[in-house]
Amino acid sequence: MSGYTPGEQPPRASKVIKLNTNENPYPPSPKVAEAIRGALESGLQRYPDPHATAFRMQAAELLGVEPDWILCGNGSDDILTIVVRTFVDAGQVIRFAAPSYVLYDTLASLQGAMADVVRYEPDWTLGYRFAQTVDGLRLAILANPNSPSGTMLPPGEVAAIADALPCPLLVDEAYVDFAQTSCVDLVRTNERIMVSRTLSKSYALAGLRFGFIVAQPQVVEQLQKVKDSYNCDALSIAGATAAISDQDWLRANVARVRASRSRLSDELQQMGFGLSESEANFVWATHPTASHEELYLTLKAQGLLVRYMRFPHWGDGLRVSVGTDDQIDALLGLLRELV
Amino acid sequence: MSGYTPGEQPPRASKVIKLNTNENPYPPSPKVAEAIRGALESGLQRYPDPHATAFRMQAAELLGVEPDWILCGNGSDDILTIVVRTFVDAGQVIRFAAPSYVLYDTLASLQGAMADVVRYEPDWTLGYRFAQTVDGLRLAILANPNSPSGTMLPPGEVAAIADALPCPLLVDEAYVDFAQTSCVDLVRTNERIMVSRTLSKSYALAGLRFGFIVAQPQVVEQLQKVKDSYNCDALSIAGATAAISDQDWLRANVARVRASRSRLSDELQQMGFGLSESEANFVWATHPTASHEELYLTLKAQGLLVRYMRFPHWGDGLRVSVGTDDQIDALLGLLRELV
Repeated sequence: MSGYTPGEQPPRASKVIKLNTNENPYPPSPKVAEAIRGALESGLQRYPDPHATAFRMQAAELLGVEPDWILCGNGSDDILTIVVRTFVDAGQVIRFAAPSYVLYDTLASLQGAMADVVRYEPDWTLGYRFAQTVDGLRLAILANPNSPSGTMLPPGEVAAIADALPCPLLVDEAYVDFAQTSCVDLVRTNERIMVSRTLSKSYALAGLRFGFIVAQPQVVEQLQKVKDSYNCDALSIAGATAAISDQDWLRANVARVRASRSRLSDELQQMGFGLSESEANFVWATHPTASHEELYLTLKAQGLLVRYMRFPHWGDGLRVSVGTDDQIDALLGLLRELV
Repeated sequence: MSGYTPGEQPPRASKVIKLNTNENPYPPSPKVAEAIRGALESGLQRYPDPHATAFRMQAAELLGVEPDWILCGNGSDDILTIVVRTFVDAGQVIRFAAPSYVLYDTLASLQGAMADVVRYEPDWTLGYRFAQTVDGLRLAILANPNSPSGTMLPPGEVAAIADALPCPLLVDEAYVDFAQTSCVDLVRTNERIMVSRTLSKSYALAGLRFGFIVAQPQVVEQLQKVKDSYNCDALSIAGATAAISDQDWLRANVARVRASRSRLSDELQQMGFGLSESEANFVWATHPTASHEELYLTLKAQGLLVRYMRFPHWGDGLRVSVGTDDQIDALLGLLRELV
């Protein structure tokens, strides 16, 4: 098998404009660096808190649950791995939709599990098959908002899917802070719904590797057994706790990204691109005539990275992360000459 | 199954003397905090380098290999997980010795693999059975130095085991910087030998979560597919690179720990404890008459934690991490009243 390949990462010092990996274009809350400096002062020779208690308490308060409803991970990719390893054995089945986050398929392969892939409808809705029972089905994963489309299913529909499924449903809410709704409240009433989050996108902390999952305590207890004891380091726990405590920063950041997303979407549509309704910090753009791959390569040659994605039985397109207004202007300027 | 349970971690602010989880009693090189502050300055909103190239270059130079012989992990526990998932499928066999690091057994369970446990001889040597072929054997793991004994097999013997085994051998060198020899040079001549290291012990960075493995490039390539893309965060990569670059600090630290280990061992022996020959930053002490569990509980009640360990078909004892001289004096003072 081949492993998962993330988006290109040019050297930090380069002048490349990166609109390819959905990073936040703005720096994180200044309280993050302050908290990390504080944690540095108290030393690194001791093992970190294996339960990341400080973070769990803060996140629990924010989400209106108890701390034992939360489990922390080394990025939400770690959380995804933990969930797959907890619920799925080799030879069993994991269901996910496509096109979606490519890692789900990699995780199924790594576990020796079978992937039951349900294709999105052309309008990015999901047919009834996503909720159907099949032999050996042990876990379903739904990115909501989805990548690359940025679209999402409303919580009521997700609840109906979970009720119909014969197995747990992991709702991957990596991008949810940029959206209007969330499924996190569904966890309270259905123990088979789990919701994962990351601090990489809306909290601008991709470099820190911190994610978490919200699930009922008896589920968290099972996940706990699978995670590495010390999967989060002392600095990331301190930084993540500070980040989630600064909701004012989050709101301001999200407002800024949403405004730029709206402008980016409008301008791309005026150029003739088709766009799905994005609730995330990126847009999925397809052009009726231009070659997406050539656009990607031409932009890249001029120092601007977007993500060119081709999905089997679906087609291809460009996923463009919402950057700063200057970065968006640079992109739009180049595209105007190309399409 | 039950998950792996690490040693107790009292709250950081407590006055407890911790000689139970083999942390380094001294702070890391000051260059670590400096490098982390530098990485903080350059921001956290971007994903980290998925290959931790800066660290790999530095470690490669130190060990006399090329960077593509090295793979980095979120602690060496992450490395162990990656190796197990790369080589062993559910139903196949992992061999390890006992008593040893308890996590090996947890990792086998998590993978749905069978554990083939070879018991150490009473003098902590390993019988021929450790090198024998059995059906389904896909990986052998050897902690060298071993925990809890601190003893090690000489590289020649490890090479002979690897030659006889029908599968890869992972030599877990978490404690090797405190020893006189290492198996890292064996990797060059035998692609089935892999050596894992951690920065938690000798580099005093348990709080940072950073480990690595040395293996031939074609093996590293396989491991790479299994690891999370961004398993090491930007701050830990910066800190770990600074740490491994400061070999003067390492040498001074190791000299200090070894001197204290020697004094601790002598004094415990004078009190009647039996000790194995430790090459690590802890000692394994057994007493012919006193109850180890009672000693542990009495010490704990007085604010001093050592690790009480009981192993099936073997017996129990106390694993005592080498602390500062003051901490060792506190332990010895308490023990003199108890045995």
